[in-house]
Amino acid sequence: MARNEENYEALIESMETYLKEKKYVQAREAIVDLEPFDIAYVMEALPEDTIPIVFRLLPKEIAAEVFVELDTDSQEDLIKSFSRAELKEVLDELYLDDAVDIIEEMPANVVKRILSTADAETRQNINNILQYPEDSTGSIMTTEYIDLKTNMTVEDALKRIRRVGQDMETINVMYVTDPARHLLGYMTIRDLLMSEEDQTVEEIMDTNIISASTLDDQEETARKFERYDFLTMPVVDKENRLVGIVTIDDALDVLVEETTEDIERMAAISPSYKPYLNTGVLETVKSRIPWLLLLMVSATFTGQIISSFEDALAAVTILTAYIPMLMDTGGNCGSQASVTVIRGISLDEIELKDLLKVIWKEMRVAVIIGCILAVCNFGKLMLVDRLLLHNPITITVALVICLTLVFTVFAAKLVGCTLPILAKAIGFDPAVMASPFITTIVDAISLLIYFRFAQTLLQL
Amino acid sequence: MARNEENYEALIESMETYLKEKKYVQAREAIVDLEPFDIAYVMEALPEDTIPIVFRLLPKEIAAEVFVELDTDSQEDLIKSFSRAELKEVLDELYLDDAVDIIEEMPANVVKRILSTADAETRQNINNILQYPEDSTGSIMTTEYIDLKTNMTVEDALKRIRRVGQDMETINVMYVTDPARHLLGYMTIRDLLMSEEDQTVEEIMDTNIISASTLDDQEETARKFERYDFLTMPVVDKENRLVGIVTIDDALDVLVEETTEDIERMAAISPSYKPYLNTGVLETVKSRIPWLLLLMVSATFTGQIISSFEDALAAVTILTAYIPMLMDTGGNCGSQASVTVIRGISLDEIELKDLLKVIWKEMRVAVIIGCILAVCNFGKLMLVDRLLLHNPITITVALVICLTLVFTVFAAKLVGCTLPILAKAIGFDPAVMASPFITTIVDAISLLIYFRFAQTLLQL
Repeated sequence: MARNEENYEALIESMETYLKEKKYVQAREAIVDLEPFDIAYVMEALPEDTIPIVFRLLPKEIAAEVFVELDTDSQEDLIKSFSRAELKEVLDELYLDDAVDIIEEMPANVVKRILSTADAETRQNINNILQYPEDSTGSIMTTEYIDLKTNMTVEDALKRIRRVGQDMETINVMYVTDPARHLLGYMTIRDLLMSEEDQTVEEIMDTNIISASTLDDQEETARKFERYDFLTMPVVDKENRLVGIVTIDDALDVLVEETTEDIERMAAISPSYKPYLNTGVLETVKSRIPWLLLLMVSATFTGQIISSFEDALAAVTILTAYIPMLMDTGGNCGSQASVTVIRGISLDEIELKDLLKVIWKEMRVAVIIGCILAVCNFGKLMLVDRLLLHNPITITVALVICLTLVFTVFAAKLVGCTLPILAKAIGFDPAVMASPFITTIVDAISLLIYFRFAQTLLQL
Repeated sequence: MARNEENYEALIESMETYLKEKKYVQAREAIVDLEPFDIAYVMEALPEDTIPIVFRLLPKEIAAEVFVELDTDSQEDLIKSFSRAELKEVLDELYLDDAVDIIEEMPANVVKRILSTADAETRQNINNILQYPEDSTGSIMTTEYIDLKTNMTVEDALKRIRRVGQDMETINVMYVTDPARHLLGYMTIRDLLMSEEDQTVEEIMDTNIISASTLDDQEETARKFERYDFLTMPVVDKENRLVGIVTIDDALDVLVEETTEDIERMAAISPSYKPYLNTGVLETVKSRIPWLLLLMVSATFTGQIISSFEDALAAVTILTAYIPMLMDTGGNCGSQASVTVIRGISLDEIELKDLLKVIWKEMRVAVIIGCILAVCNFGKLMLVDRLLLHNPITITVALVICLTLVFTVFAAKLVGCTLPILAKAIGFDPAVMASPFITTIVDAISLLIYFRFAQTLLQL
């Protein structure tokens, strides 16, 4: 049953009616078979005060899964409405990494309440994960995985899976450790099922392991899932002891989040990590204003360049009319190059050692694009602007504009492709070097080129 | 063993030596234990003519996995170098969906050779998948999944998995069909292992199925993996008959590819689907020039606006100096709004019905941002530009500039947030409506506002 806008509007309406008329059995029946994500979607569309009611109608395993999918505000409200016993019940059903994700978003008093309710072992585990830095692989891992020993037989392993499997985040991949918890190998459930019952884990396990370190950047780890088509990846500490696993659903969330961050940075927005409609107006302002201010002030340069060529502009006033076109084209060319390179860096396709290769490629692209644009523009200037719109354009003025175009495109592509790679090399986020920043630089360059050509060719 | 730049440079060097000295055993030993992706990475760094040699050194299962990871050109060269028997061997080892992906990239004569080598059943399956439209869910699915019948016992099911599991893309999820292949339910390998041997599939299976249709857009299907944390998803035809499954590794590839497409469109680039460094110069030019030409020509409007206010600019020449700042700020504000909204649409956070909510939010954001920018700019104009740089700025001129700023920001945010949603509503790609396009519109609007204020307040 796919989520379908129209169906859901009807469902939400009937839920409202059921709840108003206290027909709780019907309300429960109407949603209990949906996916947790969809139940959460319906709940959040209902009046706020009915969320705890609906939540209590759900069987406890489903309730826990729905809880994970709710937004932070609803989660907080629910936790506050829970009795101690209820909170413990939900906590027991949650996978550890989900519990940690939720705790990270809660205010301190709620965190305290959650931790005081959890049993000692869970509390210890949660605290262990919480201590890893934000954005580290440790912060997205779970400690609920199946570990095997080398001397176990296939039969032993299957028994262990049957015994503890229900509480693990996944049974698709299992890890083999020695008594000191050093990671020795892994096997998939398929490997296990395809083997004879009396074979040992040691015989079957694969010892070529790609693992992540607890302190590795979470994006780096997530990219490995994409590269190697993994479903899970082991996380080890500095002594190569297994401390947890990352599963692909969490890696996928990281990739989506980091990509959104890149896109926002490229558009001069500080990342907010919240869905657009859930972000407050002031929060949105805060994430947008710093770059706008910086870019506004840096536009002082372009202003000063124009001021200093005031006489040239006064002599041939038509030159002013082409400033926007030149600046925009330069900006667009620059951001084409920078955005392509930034995405390449994100996807590990471009590294510092490729800098010269990238520059050489962009130079050739720039020459071709510059010439095509210049020729087309020359034609447009003479035919449309001069003949049709009667602008006072001489061949020399057209030449100034078109030559500027060629050089601006060249400069823009060069700046656009170089800055992100250099930023990465000195440890900055390449995405910050994207369009708006590059546009400002390219604006200044294009104006300087423009006025230089104007002075020379028009003898101003 | 994580991929590590330095290690790999050393490895590539020793591989070159081994190959030159025909030490094939050592060459094989050096790489055979790496992940397929990394073997492919090493192979592509070696001289081109050694690729077939290294490929033949690998055990055939590993060779097939490496083959999938090679770039299209290397794959094509290899296929051409294969004997019929070799090609058949590789084909037999490939998963069906990987084979289809490769075939889709090959020129017609190579495709013909591949299909003529495949056995009748494989050929039929490949042709079936090839007939689905590009970007459809059918085109990314595989037909190699495990299907079960309702009356099977757990024991039967486990036997079936042991018999056919090795050739399936995954055994983590199995699907239950009736004799006419209608999809009835699914179960995970965990469900199976946690059940008693004599329970039937019907008793265990989950019948709340979320499935995709063969003709569903691949991005839509991939987003469902993200939303529901699936590892696989069944694909059905119009009669709800199971025709294949999509696995999360392919869904992840689709998400990355579609996001790159969005990012490229936002930067006025036609998507190319190839890693940057593998794209030819002319191909890059082709993907960038159409939008540049269009945007260059559309800048004619801004040019004409400036021309028609030539007299005003001649009277107060300092006005010209602030055109770049006003245009850039407008452009930046517009693209902040549009990029945020476009990403929200991609992530299913924003829909058409949210249009008014989005507009209302952006209006409030715009007013606050506009006022902050205007106040800061007024201060900057009077203190820096006037006192420090001795520009001829009167309070009225500063007022004109700052009022323009407020209105430009407002217009830019409004245009920026509205266009992507409307584009989506009429079936266009919202990403095309991003910064460059919106910048052009906002440029024109901001100039009109600027000159109107100048004429009114400065009585020009």
